[in-house]
Parts: sequence; C-alpha cells; structure tokens
Amino acid sequence: MRAEIKGLNEECGVFGVWGHEDAAAITYYGLHSLQHRGQEGAGIVVSDKEKLKIQKGMGLVNDVFSEEKLSRMNGSAAIGHVRYTTAGDSDFINCQPLLFNSQTSSLALAHNGNIVNATALKRQLEHQGSIFQTTSDTEVIAHLIKRSGYPNLTDSIKNALTMVKGAYALACLVEDAMIVALDPNGLRPLAIGKLGDAYVVSSETCAFDIIGAEFVRDVQPGELITINDEGMHIDRFSLTTNRSLCSMEYVYFARPDSNVDGINIHMARKNLGRVLAKEAPVEADVVTGVPDSSISAAIGFAEETGIPYELGLIKNRYVGRTFIQPSQALREQGVKMKLSAVRGVVEGKRVVMVDDSIVRGTTARRIVKMLKEAGAKEVHVRISSPPIVNPCYYGIDTSTKGELIASTKSTEAILEELGADSLSYLSVDGLMEGIGRDDSSPNCGQCLACFTGSYPTEIFPEADHPYDKVMGGK
Amino acid sequence: MRAEIKGLNEECGVFGVWGHEDAAAITYYGLHSLQHRGQEGAGIVVSDKEKLKIQKGMGLVNDVFSEEKLSRMNGSAAIGHVRYTTAGDSDFINCQPLLFNSQTSSLALAHNGNIVNATALKRQLEHQGSIFQTTSDTEVIAHLIKRSGYPNLTDSIKNALTMVKGAYALACLVEDAMIVALDPNGLRPLAIGKLGDAYVVSSETCAFDIIGAEFVRDVQPGELITINDEGMHIDRFSLTTNRSLCSMEYVYFARPDSNVDGINIHMARKNLGRVLAKEAPVEADVVTGVPDSSISAAIGFAEETGIPYELGLIKNRYVGRTFIQPSQALREQGVKMKLSAVRGVVEGKRVVMVDDSIVRGTTARRIVKMLKEAGAKEVHVRISSPPIVNPCYYGIDTSTKGELIASTKSTEAILEELGADSLSYLSVDGLMEGIGRDDSSPNCGQCLACFTGSYPTEIFPEADHPYDKVMGGK
Amino acid sequence: MRAEIKGLNEECGVFGVWGHEDAAAITYYGLHSLQHRGQEGAGIVVSDKEKLKIQKGMGLVNDVFSEEKLSRMNGSAAIGHVRYTTAGDSDFINCQPLLFNSQTSSLALAHNGNIVNATALKRQLEHQGSIFQTTSDTEVIAHLIKRSGYPNLTDSIKNALTMVKGAYALACLVEDAMIVALDPNGLRPLAIGKLGDAYVVSSETCAFDIIGAEFVRDVQPGELITINDEGMHIDRFSLTTNRSLCSMEYVYFARPDSNVDGINIHMARKNLGRVLAKEAPVEADVVTGVPDSSISAAIGFAEETGIPYELGLIKNRYVGRTFIQPSQALREQGVKMKLSAVRGVVEGKRVVMVDDSIVRGTTARRIVKMLKEAGAKEVHVRISSPPIVNPCYYGIDTSTKGELIASTKSTEAILEELGADSLSYLSVDGLMEGIGRDDSSPNCGQCLACFTGSYPTEIFPEADHPYDKVMGGK
Amino acid sequence: MRAEIKGLNEECGVFGVWGHEDAAAITYYGLHSLQHRGQEGAGIVVSDKEKLKIQKGMGLVNDVFSEEKLSRMNGSAAIGHVRYTTAGDSDFINCQPLLFNSQTSSLALAHNGNIVNATALKRQLEHQGSIFQTTSDTEVIAHLIKRSGYPNLTDSIKNALTMVKGAYALACLVEDAMIVALDPNGLRPLAIGKLGDAYVVSSETCAFDIIGAEFVRDVQPGELITINDEGMHIDRFSLTTNRSLCSMEYVYFARPDSNVDGINIHMARKNLGRVLAKEAPVEADVVTGVPDSSISAAIGFAEETGIPYELGLIKNRYVGRTFIQPSQALREQGVKMKLSAVRGVVEGKRVVMVDDSIVRGTTARRIVKMLKEAGAKEVHVRISSPPIVNPCYYGIDTSTKGELIASTKSTEAILEELGADSLSYLSVDGLMEGIGRDDSSPNCGQCLACFTGSYPTEIFPEADHPYDKVMGGK
Repeated sequence: MRAEIKGLNEECGVFGVWGHEDAAAITYYGLHSLQHRGQEGAGIVVSDKEKLKIQKGMGLVNDVFSEEKLSRMNGSAAIGHVRYTTAGDSDFINCQPLLFNSQTSSLALAHNGNIVNATALKRQLEHQGSIFQTTSDTEVIAHLIKRSGYPNLTDSIKNALTMVKGAYALACLVEDAMIVALDPNGLRPLAIGKLGDAYVVSSETCAFDIIGAEFVRDVQPGELITINDEGMHIDRFSLTTNRSLCSMEYVYFARPDSNVDGINIHMARKNLGRVLAKEAPVEADVVTGVPDSSISAAIGFAEETGIPYELGLIKNRYVGRTFIQPSQALREQGVKMKLSAVRGVVEGKRVVMVDDSIVRGTTARRIVKMLKEAGAKEVHVRISSPPIVNPCYYGIDTSTKGELIASTKSTEAILEELGADSLSYLSVDGLMEGIGRDDSSPNCGQCLACFTGSYPTEIFPEADHPYDKVMGGK
Repeated sequence: MRAEIKGLNEECGVFGVWGHEDAAAITYYGLHSLQHRGQEGAGIVVSDKEKLKIQKGMGLVNDVFSEEKLSRMNGSAAIGHVRYTTAGDSDFINCQPLLFNSQTSSLALAHNGNIVNATALKRQLEHQGSIFQTTSDTEVIAHLIKRSGYPNLTDSIKNALTMVKGAYALACLVEDAMIVALDPNGLRPLAIGKLGDAYVVSSETCAFDIIGAEFVRDVQPGELITINDEGMHIDRFSLTTNRSLCSMEYVYFARPDSNVDGINIHMARKNLGRVLAKEAPVEADVVTGVPDSSISAAIGFAEETGIPYELGLIKNRYVGRTFIQPSQALREQGVKMKLSAVRGVVEGKRVVMVDDSIVRGTTARRIVKMLKEAGAKEVHVRISSPPIVNPCYYGIDTSTKGELIASTKSTEAILEELGADSLSYLSVDGLMEGIGRDDSSPNCGQCLACFTGSYPTEIFPEADHPYDKVMGGK
Repeated sequence: MRAEIKGLNEECGVFGVWGHEDAAAITYYGLHSLQHRGQEGAGIVVSDKEKLKIQKGMGLVNDVFSEEKLSRMNGSAAIGHVRYTTAGDSDFINCQPLLFNSQTSSLALAHNGNIVNATALKRQLEHQGSIFQTTSDTEVIAHLIKRSGYPNLTDSIKNALTMVKGAYALACLVEDAMIVALDPNGLRPLAIGKLGDAYVVSSETCAFDIIGAEFVRDVQPGELITINDEGMHIDRFSLTTNRSLCSMEYVYFARPDSNVDGINIHMARKNLGRVLAKEAPVEADVVTGVPDSSISAAIGFAEETGIPYELGLIKNRYVGRTFIQPSQALREQGVKMKLSAVRGVVEGKRVVMVDDSIVRGTTARRIVKMLKEAGAKEVHVRISSPPIVNPCYYGIDTSTKGELIASTKSTEAILEELGADSLSYLSVDGLMEGIGRDDSSPNCGQCLACFTGSYPTEIFPEADHPYDKVMGGK
Repeated sequence: MRAEIKGLNEECGVFGVWGHEDAAAITYYGLHSLQHRGQEGAGIVVSDKEKLKIQKGMGLVNDVFSEEKLSRMNGSAAIGHVRYTTAGDSDFINCQPLLFNSQTSSLALAHNGNIVNATALKRQLEHQGSIFQTTSDTEVIAHLIKRSGYPNLTDSIKNALTMVKGAYALACLVEDAMIVALDPNGLRPLAIGKLGDAYVVSSETCAFDIIGAEFVRDVQPGELITINDEGMHIDRFSLTTNRSLCSMEYVYFARPDSNVDGINIHMARKNLGRVLAKEAPVEADVVTGVPDSSISAAIGFAEETGIPYELGLIKNRYVGRTFIQPSQALREQGVKMKLSAVRGVVEGKRVVMVDDSIVRGTTARRIVKMLKEAGAKEVHVRISSPPIVNPCYYGIDTSTKGELIASTKSTEAILEELGADSLSYLSVDGLMEGIGRDDSSPNCGQCLACFTGSYPTEIFPEADHPYDKVMGGK
C-alpha cells in the first residue's frame, strides 16, 4: 500500500523460533509484527523434529493463516517469512519459506535480501542439470547447498554462501536445527532473542516485544549461527566483514519500536528531523509529517525549531486490499484515497511538510497539492534523507535510475515540479550524525549507495535492472 | 477493535448524496472515511428516481462492497450507514439503511444515535398491530412515519419525530428526495456540504475532504432539511432546541481532521492536552499518547510542558478481523496484540502517558504495566477528559454505571489499581475551555451527562440498561 | 441451474422438527434433501424454548451453514427453508424463515407456495399502517397474524388464513410450539414424520429417509397442526377442502424417492412413461431421458415398448454456481455446458428422447440438435405431461402465457421448431392414469390448471403477471 | 467424494490444446468434463508463444478458476490437469501442471499415472544434486528431461522416458510445441482430437464432445507426439509395446460418454451387466444400480433378465466440499449422507443391487443395510467386475492388499459380512467378453492385474506400498 504512495517498496521479513511448544503460533505473532516489511505473501514451516510441515499463501499473515490451520502445525521449531512481491496469484509458488524434501531429510529456507550474482549462479546450475520452479534467489541458494556435497548441513551452507554475493538475512530449518546467516556486509538487520528457554530470530526486534522475548544480540555480518537442542553455536563463514546496514532501514523501512545496532528507530528518525531542522531551518506556523514513517522526523523537526507539530495530514486506516480505487473521473473531482490534508490545521498556515524520502516525486507533488488545496499559505518540503540518485541492488525496489527524480533533475527543478515553496534534503553527513554513527563505531557502518553510488559489494552487468525480473528472492 | 482496548464503543455514521451520477461510489468513499464510527456493518441505498436499491452486509465497507456490486447500483442519490453492533451474523438484519417498500413508494432510513423512549413506542406500535423484524430503533421511526398518515413525507417525518426522544442524526431517502433531521438537542454531529452541484451530508466533515466536497453548514438541532432537484429546503420540526453535542465526539470519537461547530477535532484535543498540562503538571522525561485517539492531546501536553513528545506506544496496524487471538498461555507469556511499548523510548524514563478517557480501567492498567515492563521508571497517567461516572443513553456503549470504574472508586483507588505513579483527569471546566465553548456561544453547548449526570433529555425507567438490548438503532 | 435448462423454475421447500436436541443439525440435513426445491437461499430458525435464533443467507444449504454456525444454534425445535428466487444479493432480506420479535415473544415463518390475493392484502395492510421490508408473501401472512388480535397464536393464524387465498405449505415456530398449515386445496405437499419421540415436517418425504425418520401422514388440505411438548394436535381452519395437488410435483419437481399421497414419485413417473408409450408409440432403436427428472419416465417408456433404455444424454455434475459460462464465440463453436449427447450411444440410431415437459421449447430444441449432431438418425420427442398452456399462480415460475410455446403454437409448429422427427405429449387423462388418481380417490385430486386452465382457486387481476414481482414468497 | 463411498479413488486427468485463440478457456471446459478423474486440485498452463503462465489451486475446476483469472491467461496453447490427492492445503505445491523456468526457456508438465521406479530414480537424482519441492512423480520426469542434455526437447523426453517404468499419460508444453506421450503398456487412456484447425488431447473423449471437437485417434502405447504450428508429428520412443489398458477405466473410472479404443464406456458397462446376468442370474422383482457408475451395468442386467430396472437408490447431488458431516450420534440415529434407498421402490421387493466393484466392502455393507431398512425382502448383490485381490501400482488407490476384502475373505464370508442374500462377481472372461476384447484384437489388451496379479510391468520392492507416500504424481 505504501508502495503506491511512495514508489519505495517494502522488503521482506524473516522470523524463526527454536524450542517452544507453540512454535507456529509464536511465528505467526512474530510475522505479524513484521507485516510492514511485506504484505503480499506469508508462510511458516514448522518442525516436530521428525518432519517439516508448510503453510503459505498470498496476502497478509491474517489472511493466510486461520486458527484451524495453525492448530495443525504442531512442532517446537519454526521459521516464517513475509514477502513483498510484484505480481498475481501465480506467484504463490514464490512465497517463502521454500521447502525441499529429499528421501532422507528436508530443508526449509527463508531469506530477506537480494543476491547480485543470482543470474550467473543460475546459469551455472542449469548447465549442470538444475531445474527451477520459482524465480526466487532462495531456490538458487538451496541448489548450491544441495550441490556442495558435504555430509553436514552447516558445512554445506558455508560452502554455498562462499559463492553468493549480495544481501541476505537467511533462516534455514531442518528437522534438528535452525541455522541463520547474515551476509558479510550485514546489509539487512537480523537479531536474536530469547523467550524463556527458546531462541527466536527476527528481522527486527519489534517482534521480540510483541511476543514477550528478550533481545540477546544482533547477528553480525558473516556469521552463521546454529541453534539446536544443545543451544546456540556461533560460527563465521566469512572472515572479512564490514557492516554496511541499509540506511533506508533507519530512514523508512523498520518499525519505530525496533532497535538496530542498539539504536532505536524512532529516536534515530527524530534525530534526523532535528539535524534536518538545523541544516535547513524555515519560518513557518506548523510542522506536519507524512504518515506513518515521517512522523518521528517531523516531531524532531518541530522540537528543534519550536514550531508546533500538528496532524496536518491524516491516513485512512481502513484502506485495505479490497479497497475499490476511485475511477479517473472521481479522482479528478478530488476523491482521495489513503491520505488527506486537515483543513482545520493547515488553512492559512505556513506548513513544513516533513517526508522521509522522495523517489519519483509523484507522491510528494500530490501531498503538496493537497495541502495547498486545504488552504496552506506556504508549503516547505523537508526530506529527512539525502537525494536518492542510484538504484538499490540489495532488495529495495527503488526502480531504475531513470525513474529516480533526483538523479535526473536539480533540486530547483524538483521544487518547481512539487509546486512547493521550498525544498531541502538532509545531507549525507547529517544522515550519519542523525543515526549516531561515527568513525569510532568499528564494523558498524551504513550502506549509503543509493545516495552516494558507493556500493559495498561488487555489482554485475546482469544485475543492472534488478526489477525487470520478478523479485522472488527478497 | 478499539472497543476491546477501551471498553468505549463506537457509534454509527451516516452519509448521503443527492444529485451526483456516481452517488453510490461517492457514498462508498464517504462511508470509508466514517469507518472509525462503526466497523461491524455497512450499507448503501441508491435511488435512480424510480426505484431504491440496497446493498448491505456485516464487516468493513471494503468487505461489504465490491467493484461489481457498486457498479450495479446506478442512481444519482444515495444514503449509507456504518454500524457498530454487538452480535454475530444473524445481525445482518439490523444493518442499515433499512428499506421499506410499499406498493406505491419506497423509504430508506439510516440513523446515528439512540432513542430513549423506543421501548414505550414499540409497545404502543405492537399493540396497534406493528411487527418488527429488527431490534433497531430505526424500525420504530419507520413505523411512526408510516402511521402518521400524512400524504406528504415531510409532514409524516415531522409528525413521527414529535413522538421520539433521544439522540438522532437521521437520513431518509425516497425516490425523489433526501431528508435529513437532527434531534432538538443536537447530540450527534451532522454536516452538509456541496460537491459541485450535488449535496452531501455526513456525520463528520472528514468525509467531505475525502471526496473533495466543500463544507456548507452544520445541521442545527431540530432542523429537518429536504434536498431534492429543486435544491435544499431547511425546515424545523422543533422550535425549542438546545445544542448539547456529545463531548466524547471531541474527546474520542470523531476523526482529528473533522470539524464540528467550526472547531477542528485535532486542535480541540490538543487544547485539552494543554489545559490538562496546566491543571496537572508533572516532572517527566517523555510524553506519550495512547494511539490513535490520544495523540493530539499528548502533543498538546508536551508543547505546554516542554517535555518531549515521543512514540512510546505503538499500535499494530495489521490486526484485523481475522486476527487469531493468542491463547491464554501465550498471553501469560507476554504475547501482545494491538499495542506495544517502545523500549528504546521509555527505558529508564519518567513517562507521562496521556489517554483520552478511562472507562473500566482495564486497558489503562494493561498499558501502564506494558510501559513499566519496557523499563519506564515512572508512569504518570493524564486523562484528557473528566471521570466518566454516568452511563450514556444516547448511543455510546459506556456499559452500566456499575462497570464505570470512576463511579465506584476514588481516584486514589484507581491510581492504585492502575499501578501508575500519578493520575489526574481534566476538569469539566477544563474540558469546556479546551474545546473552546463559553457562555457567549448561544445554542452551542455540550452534553456533559456522562461526567455530570445532567442529561439534556428525559430518561425513562425502561432505558435504564440501554445495552441489555442489542444496539440496533445506533 | 435446472432453471436455465428448462425455464421451469423450482419452488421452495420447508422443514421443521420439534423435540430433538440436535434440532438445527436435523433441519440442516432435512433442507439438504430438499435442496432441489430451491437453491438460491436457505435459513434455519431454532428455538431453545426461551428465544429464537436465526441464520440465513444466499446460496446452497452447504454454503450458508458452517459447522461453527450450526454449533451456535442450540435448541430442541427448528424450522428451515430453501428458496428459489430471481435476483441478487439484495435479496438476502427475502430469504426465509422470516423472524419477527416483539417485546413479549417471537414468531418465525417459512412458506412454500404463492398467495394469489397478496397484492390486495398488502394494500389493505399498508393503508392500516403496516410497513414492509421484504417482497415476500410470508411477510403479509405475518402482518395478518399480528393484526388478528387473538391472545392465542393458533386462533390468530386461523384468523389470518381465512383472508389468504392461494397455495401455501406453512411452518411457524414460536418459543413453545411449532404450527404447520396447508391451504384448503392442498396445492403443495407437506408431510409429517416421527424421529424417535421428535416430530418432523417436510415438504417431501425424502427428507425423512435421509434423517432416519418414519413417515406418519400427509398434512391434509385445510389442516392446522400444532406440535408442542404435549404432542401433536390436529385442527382445521377450513371446512371446505378439495385436494388439488400440483401435477408438476409428480411430473418434475419432487425427488424420485419422495412419496406424495402414498404414491412414489419415481413409480408415478415411470407409469407416465408407460402410458405415454401406449398413447404415442414409435419405432426406434434406443430410448433416452433428459437427466435428471425424465429418467424414470424414459425407463417406463423403454419397458413398455421393449426398446432398450440407454444413457444417450449425460449431465455434467460439476456445473456449480461459480461455473464460467462459455463466451458466445465458444458457444457457437460448440462448447456445451450442462448436458451432452453420447455419440457412442446415439450415432446412427433412431432415438426416443423422453422429456417431462416443454415450457418455452428452447431447451428441447437444443437437445434435439445435440442428438442429431452426435449422429442420431431420427429423434422422436415424447413429453410425459400434457402441453403447458396456462401460467401457474401457485408458485411455479412458468413465465407468462405468451412465453409458453404450447399456448401460441400448434404441435406441428413446435415439432418444426424443435427440428425433431416426431413429437407427442401425454394426454391429461393419461397423466391422471399414470399418477394413479381416479374418481374413486375422494379429496385426492390434482391441480391441472397449467394444462386445462381450470384453476382450483379464484385468480385476481393483479395476479395476472405473477412473475413481474420478485417471487419473495414462494 | 466417491472415495468415501467406495474406497476406490479417482485418478487424474490431463488435457491440452494447440492452436486455438481461447486455449485457456477451452482447457477449462475440457478439465471440467474430466472433473470426475480428480477433484482435489486443478491447474492450467498457457503459452502465448513467448512465455508460459500458470494458474492452479486446490479444489474443483470451478473453484480454482474465475472469469477474471481465465481472462488473464491469453495464449493459443495450453495444458491442464485435474488431480486426486490425499492431503491438505499444503499440497498446493503438488498440484499440476508443474512449471519449470530456466533462463532460456520454460517447460510445463502434467501427468496421469504412477511411476513404479520413482523412488530409485529420485535417489539417483538426489545423489547427483537434484532437489525436490514436490512429492510428485512428475518432478522426477522433469529432472530426467533436464539432465538428458540433448539440445532438442523431443530427444530429451525420449531419453528420459527410457528410464521411467510404470503408467503415464504425459502432456508437456513449451513455448513452441505441445508434446504428449503414453507409456509402452498404454495403461492410461489418452486421445487426440481436432477443433477446427486446433489440436486437442484429453484423457477421455468426453471432453471432445463438450468442446465440440472431433475425435481423431487414441494415442498408442509408446508414442510420443509433437504438435506445433507445422501440425502433428507422430513418433515412438519405445518399439516394444503392448496395450494393457486399465480395466477399471471401463468398469468404474471413465465417464459413460467417453470411448476408449473405439468402445463406448456406457455400452461396455451395459454389456458387463448383461454378461453378469447370464453368469449369475437370480429371481427378483427389481434391479437397481449404485449411482452413478453402476447404472449402466444395472440397465444391462435388467434388460438381459427382464426384471424391471428401478431407481432404488438415490444420490444426493448437493453433497459438496463444505458439507457438514453428521455427528456419530446422528449417524447412529440413521442420518444418511450421500445415498439413500427409495422405500417406495424397494419395500417388500426382492432387489438385485448391481455395483461395479467391491474394495473394502464397507460401502456395499452399508447399502445392503439401507435397502433392507427401506423394506427390501431380499438383496442380491451382483458385481460387474471380478474380485479385486491385488493392489494397483499404476495410479489407482486400491489400498494395500490387506485392506482388499476379496484378498482375505472367501465370497461366502463376504456375503455374510454384507448381510445380503446372494453375492456374485463377474468372471475375468466375462469382463473381457463384456468389454468386447478378444484374442483377435492385437495390441489391444487390458491390464487385469488387480484381478489376476499379472502385472504388465516390473514392480519393485520400494513400490510395495504405493499409497504410503503422498500420491503426488498421479
């Protein structure tokens, strides 16, 4: 849904639990709190130590699972996945986890991220006789694991990951263990917690709060962690690692109640707003944020400037999957859908509109127009991240470079297109300051590639248009 | 959903349009923006000037209407209703509008409110041979209209309303007119707008913003307004009127982007927070509001005191109708559902928790506990309305007097039960100040009955437990 | 479904049970076996002696009721209804039983048939202040019962039925009794059975076999039977009665395993086929029946003539509600839907095609064409009922007189239109002989109005086009 | 559904079309007419010459496809599949066709039958690095095709089929061709037809009648037929072939309006009934068949003996997927489900009950009991096939040998268990005579393994309990 507003699509979320008698239910609630990371499909694989069982489907976690379905998934370990994708029902096959059954054992895989050499790996595998039923990168990893030939699963996964480049927070489940791994750049978040004696893993810590678990540690780049009945065993599959966490996790993706690398997302966003206020102050009567993700930054901006923070924009909470889109005619008559401006708040006022990012500019232009139509005297757009000028190859659907408005137009030209009275972005330094990263935080940096073009991994020609393919493997 | 958090249930919402070729679609979007007033059922009746057609059902507006269903509802006038109710599928029959067909004409009725002499009226009507298929007050009004015997619908409605006491914002549709009426005390909001040449009516003005309509005026207490192809004709069915708008509309029910009597709801709530801060200041590190309805008051409180406003509590957006409730065992292990405290924000902090009201105290106690478990050092509860000590007979499900915690316990006892460090309510004067009502606003007062026990209408013995009956007519 | 093949629509079915702890489940299975009488809606009202609860909806019995819904309907008495209707979802309101709640008691009504003076009664009732929410005749009966003013329900029903003319098999449920009544002409079937100590009533006896009940007796014309905890009490509301059972029940509607007036439907149909063979013999190689309702007659025809009976036509069992109709283009290319001719059986053969009736002729023409295309050398159409030349006012949708092919065309003209090699109908005498009725069976005749125009009741001008109104009350 | 009555489960059905602009719709109607072969899942893959698109799901063809879904499947070629399976929703993954996408091309496969060396093949493939997502034999064939390494698909399929043993009617679709193949024993039926210029293939010819296509020829054992824009090319992948068509196709599975090897199924069944009557005559009053599959044999039996054929048993047409099963208590009180005996037909009569087969005997016992309870004086069971004493390894779920009543008990013991008055089976010679096979029909024999134990292919130890595994590949 956000996707349509913003043009900046969600990633996926993974969750896992080991050693809890209600493993499937715990995973259901965990996935629920990760729902913002993917709303197109969801799945759970549960292990009762003898057999893996799977349930998955298109739609929200709520839609895919019923009480009756969950009740059939008994077992003490589970992994789950919520998925963002692009296409229709036929994509069921791409929903995760993927489950592979051999005559002696089973393997389930769920993954958040994007593999940048997937095309080359697939070519090789096909040449050797592999066949593919999904368009997901996860299936590539499964083939590599199978073909590594080690008797031991951990060794097989390690071997497979030596061939894979890109972003991946990976959760595997077999009958007698759960294994998680994070790419050497740590592009995606992944945390470990404890729920009584049980272990839990999650893309974000907000899931721990929902299920009453305690945070233990973030999975570090290059780690491969095995959890089984003997406990948790931390191992490494890569010795050279360099934390480059996706900056958009702080700016936009993660839930405000999650922490990544010890930093609370809401607090980080509020700081981004404060820094932005210092970098680009403006005389105005009210500050408003574009809901939901820009609220924190707007509050920070308001606090720093002393301009009151108001609910100048409001989101319709009930716009769901089955919402009937207004016809073109009605849209032209002014029928709005997800967002509306609050006349009682903005009429006659100079408004600071804080948004977290601009991708194509379409949404920002629409919101500025809405505010002006509701009577705002001036609209000052403040963006709590730097201009996005480069595509992402690691799992965020920022479209191709040509579609990124900031890569083709100057700030002045964008300002004109938005129809606003001023426009400022946060600087890259301001971003780092706001998040609270500095040079003294070793192994703890950010990926800034979409702002700076400096990618933390190799990028290959066939990855040029990552979203021409169906994004199966995110 | 909110109901389960709060014990303070939603009312209903009505919407109507006259003179627009997409009347059903306009009503769909209008009802959508009134969805917060009732989530259990929805319905639309459309008139093509020759015939009335109805579609209704249990569930959200999104669930009840499909593109295909809407497309079959052609006509240039429509009324719609969203409903809050208590029971299961069999309640379909109670969904509104109600549609009555005689051999010569049809009449559709939708109504928000509660009639306090419905029981007596029903007894009389049954004695005279009326039979009832619903448990809705609306059916009582329909019988009265039919039995008034005037050849003219307007006169029949006027005649019927002379017998009815209580709260009602009423919308009627016949083949050639839409008629709306508001009770002489104006207990419920009802506004009129224009969308090009078409007229629209709505329980709240937020619907006008969504569909791009302009606000024209609030319907005044005791008015009966006929809209037909000749325009709008304003009439009165009661000469003695006395605006007594439900205070909970400002405190809790209405959407922040609606205006009632020229007052923006968000602004009013923020003022309530400001006045509350003046009346009951406290030393603290962060202010947080219980989402969604207390956010504005919390912002006001923060601004007045200079204590930063933070997202200390977060609501899970994806908890829908099909959400699987955690088992008792999981709940005891700490699995949360709709709301969670943000550890990264509240840990080690003195927290002001602003809530709009306390009904039974259960939710407030749960939230205080959540905040403390997330590490809050102190929790100071500030309520942006006075203690609710009397039941409502006008359509708000505040339960019986015995269930209202403030009617049976002292503030000290409640504080102890909540487990908080301090507890203060807004005063009644503070409420009036916050909303901005004063003695100089003639005909423009508030109903304060749930705080003061001073009811603006007669109340009858059989209305003593208004929620023992199914709340058909709200 | 049959409707589309035949243009002769189903009626409704009623069922009731008193004194069985699983009353709702028993009614569910009973309605199931009456499903052929109405496939558009179904409903059950159950009484736990204190309160009536209702569940109903559009669709098949299977679609409307789930295990979970049934489990909530506890009580030891129930009535149910399956309904045939013409329109869309908005017709939910017309589904039966209808349930009326007053402040002191409740009344549920279900009815099979059609009231011929409903329009006049409604006009009177409206004049006296009654309002109508459905277009069903049943609501008219309910108003009459209410207005009769007797303290006693039995007397009220009797009083009401004195004003009603037409066809009705009526089942009423109140907290402490179930009452059934049959119109003085006994136009519709209604039978009573026992299931252990419990009483059951059903439109057809096939329901008794399904639930393991024993047949006790057919309800006689003009009877009003009260069943309560003291047993069954048989009363009469009309002294002048004259059994005129709808002949189409034997010819087409009822299930072959039902008995009416002691005559098994399959056996009756087989006899109709035998008599038809005697009246209109033909030289041929195979006899085939149009499935499902003409199978018995075809077998009888085959036995009488010695020509082998074969499956020359086959019905697709899986054509359900959601079946996608072939486009016009595909239909022209020969894509068939519900019925197909069996080439392996009819190729090169002289085929006798036995059908139970011809209404508009469209279906018969299509089947003849199908048989010829599958290679039949000759097709001899034999109809096991006389030509239908008059509309039915008692609940069968035979369309208006103008649409009845036999009322506007000679048999020769019809033969030509069908493209068959010969065409014969059963005579009216043959029909009576086949069913086994004769002059010596007192009070036990048939309604033959659609063949002879001799209606057993008065018919009124406003009833002229019974199917211009929505057939709510069947 | 039948499965529960009989314990003899359906197989699968395949359908394909090449060169028709409405390929998906044609396949939908084709699958519809094959629905009796599999009711648990359905799928269609369509090719627009550039890309393959898939839609599949659990349930009936009607449930899986909507008008909207079909409309998105444009293309001029398609294959489809209906599936019988054993387990729940998680089996979605096993629905067919399977679709494999490589970077250069796609391959879709659908298959009816069972591969007897699948376990060994899978073991080999896994050892070489193959991974499996389904439990379907079809996936094994796909791996073999991929690994055969020929540049040409036809050669690859031929190569793959040299390794496969068992029963398979296979349909493959690639962008530019449709390829069908039948195992060297021709255990399953597969026919080719023409629809204008388009080619169609189907498990049964009844699909041709439904879509208006003309039968061309049966696919012969060992043939591999390629259909593309240049027409149809018939090839062989096996030189030693020996038609051994599954006898149960004639006895029970196929639709009466299908022809296999030029023999109409209804006619064959009727002949089986005639031969049975000659082999095992009996004095009786009525002959009745167990619907639906034994109707033809019952008619034949009746004709041969001159005893009248009657509808003594009737099937409830509306028992669908959502039917609520009666509780044990209700079942004991006599609540029936799918089948009931017609008292009006059988009471006081000596009944011949013709059934096509006895597997476990449970159903036959229940039907005999039903007939006796409905008043039958004598019940003579006549089975239109020989005793089933051996399991099937070719795709029919006859359970293990131990569950086959005829393999563990004498006919006398079975008679006693059934509670009937006499019991006779058709002889193996009678079966062959009835079908019309004789020694002079070269290459045209039947598989009689379930009666005689003489299997037409090798059988391997790991295939011993074919139904312990999920029947993915049928």
